[in-house]
Amino acid sequence: MTATLAPPALRWDGERLHVLDQTRLPAHEEVLVLESAEDTARAIERLAVRGAPLIGIAAAFGLAMEVGREPSPGALARGAERLATCRPTARNLAWAVERVRAAAVAAGPLPLASAARAAAEEIQREDAVASAALAEHGAVLLNAALTRDAASPSAPTGSSAPTGSSAPTGSSGDAAPRPVTVLTHCNSGCLAASGRGTGLGVIAALADRRPVRVLACEARPLLQGARLTVWELGRLGIDHALVVDAAAPGLIRTGQVDAVVTGFDRVAANGDVANKVGTYGLALAASAAGIPFVAAGPSSSVDTTLAGGDAIEIEERGADEVRSAAGALLTVPGTPVRNPAFDVTPAALVWALVTERGVARPVDAASVAAVA
Amino acid sequence: MTATLAPPALRWDGERLHVLDQTRLPAHEEVLVLESAEDTARAIERLAVRGAPLIGIAAAFGLAMEVGREPSPGALARGAERLATCRPTARNLAWAVERVRAAAVAAGPLPLASAARAAAEEIQREDAVASAALAEHGAVLLNAALTRDAASPSAPTGSSAPTGSSAPTGSSGDAAPRPVTVLTHCNSGCLAASGRGTGLGVIAALADRRPVRVLACEARPLLQGARLTVWELGRLGIDHALVVDAAAPGLIRTGQVDAVVTGFDRVAANGDVANKVGTYGLALAASAAGIPFVAAGPSSSVDTTLAGGDAIEIEERGADEVRSAAGALLTVPGTPVRNPAFDVTPAALVWALVTERGVARPVDAASVAAVA
Repeated sequence: MTATLAPPALRWDGERLHVLDQTRLPAHEEVLVLESAEDTARAIERLAVRGAPLIGIAAAFGLAMEVGREPSPGALARGAERLATCRPTARNLAWAVERVRAAAVAAGPLPLASAARAAAEEIQREDAVASAALAEHGAVLLNAALTRDAASPSAPTGSSAPTGSSAPTGSSGDAAPRPVTVLTHCNSGCLAASGRGTGLGVIAALADRRPVRVLACEARPLLQGARLTVWELGRLGIDHALVVDAAAPGLIRTGQVDAVVTGFDRVAANGDVANKVGTYGLALAASAAGIPFVAAGPSSSVDTTLAGGDAIEIEERGADEVRSAAGALLTVPGTPVRNPAFDVTPAALVWALVTERGVARPVDAASVAAVA
Repeated sequence: MTATLAPPALRWDGERLHVLDQTRLPAHEEVLVLESAEDTARAIERLAVRGAPLIGIAAAFGLAMEVGREPSPGALARGAERLATCRPTARNLAWAVERVRAAAVAAGPLPLASAARAAAEEIQREDAVASAALAEHGAVLLNAALTRDAASPSAPTGSSAPTGSSAPTGSSGDAAPRPVTVLTHCNSGCLAASGRGTGLGVIAALADRRPVRVLACEARPLLQGARLTVWELGRLGIDHALVVDAAAPGLIRTGQVDAVVTGFDRVAANGDVANKVGTYGLALAASAAGIPFVAAGPSSSVDTTLAGGDAIEIEERGADEVRSAAGALLTVPGTPVRNPAFDVTPAALVWALVTERGVARPVDAASVAAVA
């Protein structure tokens, strides 16, 4: 691993993987060069590379690099095991690793390395296409819902068919489109996925259609909202303000938020959503206030093998993440900690799920299957 | 103002007010000596002294010291104005200042200073009595509810009469009382009020009756949970763990919390509760999970002049509180911020309100009036 300078979040040069070290943002834009499965697994574990789609892509290249170094079934199995298990909650890691592994096995021993590399490159290409598509689906859906304005967002509009009717861009007639405030959590932008990202990609695509102000939750303990989403929004030129996570429900209750939009790490067959810890509280508040809560991500994050969200393993991370922030100790040294990195939002609280295949709304097993 | 060493949160020596500088905890136990209304107002504004009951007591002594220095109606009026308005949300500040002012006015010009001092001393004595009483009321209520175990906490037990029936201490029969997990927010202990405090006083009194584990929310941005509640729980010898604010709703949803207990800064006539930002999200999650959410405080925090919580002024504090933690910058410098310090929880989500006068449950105008 060596360090040089400059974005983007992930770049494959055909042999090595260049990733922006997201633990160093926003103060430092430092690029790590990864050369093996172990390099990649460590970068994922310590969140230098993060975001459900991005860790899938990174792991795919990590496995391809590993069998590029040693094109053997043993190296393939060891690399796959190491990468698939380095974080448990996001669906994409195991999914991407399995896809690269299967491609390599199918290819036979000799072109194993090139088959693995081709599979990883395909995963990256597909994610870029998926990001662009889901951002448009989500933006069209939300733009229409927020233009109808007084319409109750909790009333289902009918089938779960991919967007379908859609809406004109922004204005209903001659009036300028109403500015809206969208609240988001953690980071689901270009640092978490290809292109413009998932949740934040939807928001950016909505901002193409009407004035949008973003309230970014900081996402303690690791502050991906404060560090990464704020940094992205500044670069995108989208109006924004940072809030502590605990402030969001009250702002939602008092009518200061028009919609909540996030990414997702894993979706179960029934539409339950695992995402960054705190998402469930935002969904509860959005539901109580009657505003849309939209979760957006690639279909590769949907896991129809799990009936419901309570079967999703929730990663518990280290205590020091909570005891400190940006290196500063916040509490009594050695204080015991609970640190679940994700939570599960029941499908009933999700106004719409968006993937590149379309919109699931209302969210149920049938509509999820249609976008999985 | 001079600095020496050692607790408690607030001590009146008959002439000057000694307060623990709570911005320096837990790393430093530093005492500030306050000598005037201005000293006291500044200590309250920067949260060296905090907690609804405690800032009321401090402001009362601040005004008494001011008229001790200059026993004139002008000094009384200026000091009262300065102190009553230095923070807007908690009821106690204006209430305590008005009580001291009225006592001084009633006393006439000559014994003005001694009347003010007597009123402040009385406020402090009453708060200590109130804290002890409300802690017992709350602990008896919760101990019974958590012993009934399978009983639905959302089913009202009947009238709002002050506790009344009560319960035996902990065990139902011969079995040892079941250990319970109580989640709390911010700090409502001996640093926020007299005696053992309000919300944390209830929890400590419950821990006298059965094994209690406390999950303490850190309370970003100023981390009163991480800094103060954890410090108090350690001194009390009560088992505890620290969580980020965003983690609480998910822990509640998955059955890892038996009850949520907090203090309150102001309660409106209908039972709506203003408390540290984040309380509303906890109440939503508790209600969804069917566990009790109890808000406890002295009747001096109840403001029956306000019909509902949306009339309560919510203090918006400075952006740097959110941009940093413990002196460390967390985001892009200069990032715009929203920083409401409190939120309002509608009465319908409050399982019980507890003051020294008893328990309001279910929470409505009549039951609130009975404990105000």
